[in-house]
Amino acid sequence: MKITVKSKFWIEADGQPVFGRGRKELLDAIDRCGSINRAAAEMNMSYRKAWGAIRAMEERLGIRLIERTTGGPEGGGAVLTDDARKFMAQYRAVESGMQQYVDERFKAVFRSGE
Amino acid sequence: MKITVKSKFWIEADGQPVFGRGRKELLDAIDRCGSINRAAAEMNMSYRKAWGAIRAMEERLGIRLIERTTGGPEGGGAVLTDDARKFMAQYRAVESGMQQYVDERFKAVFRSGE
Repeated sequence: MKITVKSKFWIEADGQPVFGRGRKELLDAIDRCGSINRAAAEMNMSYRKAWGAIRAMEERLGIRLIERTTGGPEGGGAVLTDDARKFMAQYRAVESGMQQYVDERFKAVFRSGE
Repeated sequence: MKITVKSKFWIEADGQPVFGRGRKELLDAIDRCGSINRAAAEMNMSYRKAWGAIRAMEERLGIRLIERTTGGPEGGGAVLTDDARKFMAQYRAVESGMQQYVDERFKAVFRSGE
């Protein structure tokens, strides 16, 4: 039997969840696909739902996350703003630190019988 | 807008969740009520489900968690074993350390714009 510990965290605005793993994956997908439409399809999410999530995040975090691009051979798309990239880098910094902390704390507490 | 960070963690055995907030609350309720039956009622959970959860935890963690008491004016009940108390104290030690760590890390990363 292998006992491990898992953790997650999310950001709340006025007590309401506003950013967590799912929305991070949506933004990552937009970054990769260059399009909200394609990102939503990849996430098995409707365009309407993806767009609603983006609007909710932008409003509640007070950050513009997505910039729409127009024209070009594929008829426009969407890219992450610099603020979105910065926010996601910060999120990842907390995320990676947290799992590492929890792993270490778990080992220390459970092995020592603290 | 007040931005905060929330976190949770749980323990897995061979990749399957085995102990988290819900089961911790169940054990706390048994400790308080002295009875699986009353604890399950307090948690809005069937006796069958509560008992199944206890059996699953005991088996997968390899710890005896509950001791049944027989007789007495209320016809017997259930108490936590010393091993259960020790396990829960360890769980709480990781839990409280984690939320504190995440709070501090979140403040450090987001305030500094790291």
